[in-house]
Amino acid sequence: MAVSKRSKKDPVILITNDDGVMAPGILNLAEAVKDLGKIIIVAPDKPQSGMGHAITIGSPLRLQQVHLIDGAEAWSCSGTPVDCVKLAVDKILHGKPDICLSGINHGPNHSINVIYSGTMSAAIEASIESIPSIGFSLLDYSMEADFSAARKYARIIVERILRKKQDKHLCLNVNFPAVDESLISGIKVCRQAYAKYEEDFDERKDPTGKKYYWLTGAFVNFDKGKDTDVWALNNNYVSVVPVQFDLTNYEQKTKLEKTFKL
Amino acid sequence: MAVSKRSKKDPVILITNDDGVMAPGILNLAEAVKDLGKIIIVAPDKPQSGMGHAITIGSPLRLQQVHLIDGAEAWSCSGTPVDCVKLAVDKILHGKPDICLSGINHGPNHSINVIYSGTMSAAIEASIESIPSIGFSLLDYSMEADFSAARKYARIIVERILRKKQDKHLCLNVNFPAVDESLISGIKVCRQAYAKYEEDFDERKDPTGKKYYWLTGAFVNFDKGKDTDVWALNNNYVSVVPVQFDLTNYEQKTKLEKTFKL
Repeated sequence: MAVSKRSKKDPVILITNDDGVMAPGILNLAEAVKDLGKIIIVAPDKPQSGMGHAITIGSPLRLQQVHLIDGAEAWSCSGTPVDCVKLAVDKILHGKPDICLSGINHGPNHSINVIYSGTMSAAIEASIESIPSIGFSLLDYSMEADFSAARKYARIIVERILRKKQDKHLCLNVNFPAVDESLISGIKVCRQAYAKYEEDFDERKDPTGKKYYWLTGAFVNFDKGKDTDVWALNNNYVSVVPVQFDLTNYEQKTKLEKTFKL
Repeated sequence: MAVSKRSKKDPVILITNDDGVMAPGILNLAEAVKDLGKIIIVAPDKPQSGMGHAITIGSPLRLQQVHLIDGAEAWSCSGTPVDCVKLAVDKILHGKPDICLSGINHGPNHSINVIYSGTMSAAIEASIESIPSIGFSLLDYSMEADFSAARKYARIIVERILRKKQDKHLCLNVNFPAVDESLISGIKVCRQAYAKYEEDFDERKDPTGKKYYWLTGAFVNFDKGKDTDVWALNNNYVSVVPVQFDLTNYEQKTKLEKTFKL
């Protein structure tokens, strides 16, 4: 792959995440794609996992310039991942980047996780704003995770998406299996599996005897399909699910028209 | 409509919101449907607007029993709207309610708001957990808003949905125009409009000269369709959009398979 010098025509690549600007995952993502365009990093100043599509409306936001990697402007933001995208476009880039990348998340965002994930919500926010976007996640929660295979495939995916003009609302949810590069079967375009958490709150008592609850639960896959992201990851594929922000259930829409005839 | 006495066969109706357990909207919703089943209210102890599908994973949750209306068990929860649904099912109801209602929100949740809204995320969480659900929102942010038309139509909608067995993942996003009952045109089943906020952060300086930013912006409707929720509301209809949690963009999926052939 030819690496060209930075020019005005280089794509502007906005990078964010939900694990915070200091997480190894975002550094790995920036390193993986740094020669594909002009990199601007705007990420939360603290972990924001599970924040979903939350935005900050009751308090103001702060931005602070930081150094992450040479040659890339980087900012730490006091808000959520979605706030980071909004602020980056309005106050740092003063316009739209060519692509927005989010991650690499420490932990999976396949199946129903797409809805809870701050990583994916940042990517979805970009696609709402007509910026093609990709969220990346590695199936390893560890801060010491091995990102080498993820880096290789993240770069391949970004390079292929940048190669030609994409739908302005394109949003991809990419997950990497936590295996050695030599074991990866390839890249598989999938649908979101119907798999969810079966909650089982851990009930405890504080020193005054009052109850409190920790969210815990088991992840259960109810989906037997071989075209899902969970299946792909279980079979060592990199899973790619195209995601949309139109939540309308068109099949139900037709059925419901009869129910609501007044 | 005949009102039967409470019996074991009465549907169990879980009610939550994102404006907090003390907001007038949730009281109006509970009053509107209280004779349609056994009411259990579990709602945030403080406003949680714009929390999207956030869940609380870094700190534990608290529940506190409160009194809202006679004959209904009510709990205040320290978490997000999604946490409320999870905790209600696991620790209060010890099982699934027949339906989950969320709202009535003070302010619109049509079009793209469905993604930012704590009200709708609570309803979506219920539908993920195989509980049919309905989120209600009134196009009036005021805490003194007139809920009389919203109450009437919320009751009609809940009654019709309870009348027969629904898809276990049914989730409706219902918005009420802020007009007098006499002006309401009817109920319209719609799709989600492509309409979004154009951000324009308000940049200020604190007393030490450091910048901070308030999220503001104008709502812009890019969608000219007459089958959208925004069109329906502009024409004084109660809008009903069926919502799904499978975010897969199936059209893109087919297109992308070629892009990622290795």
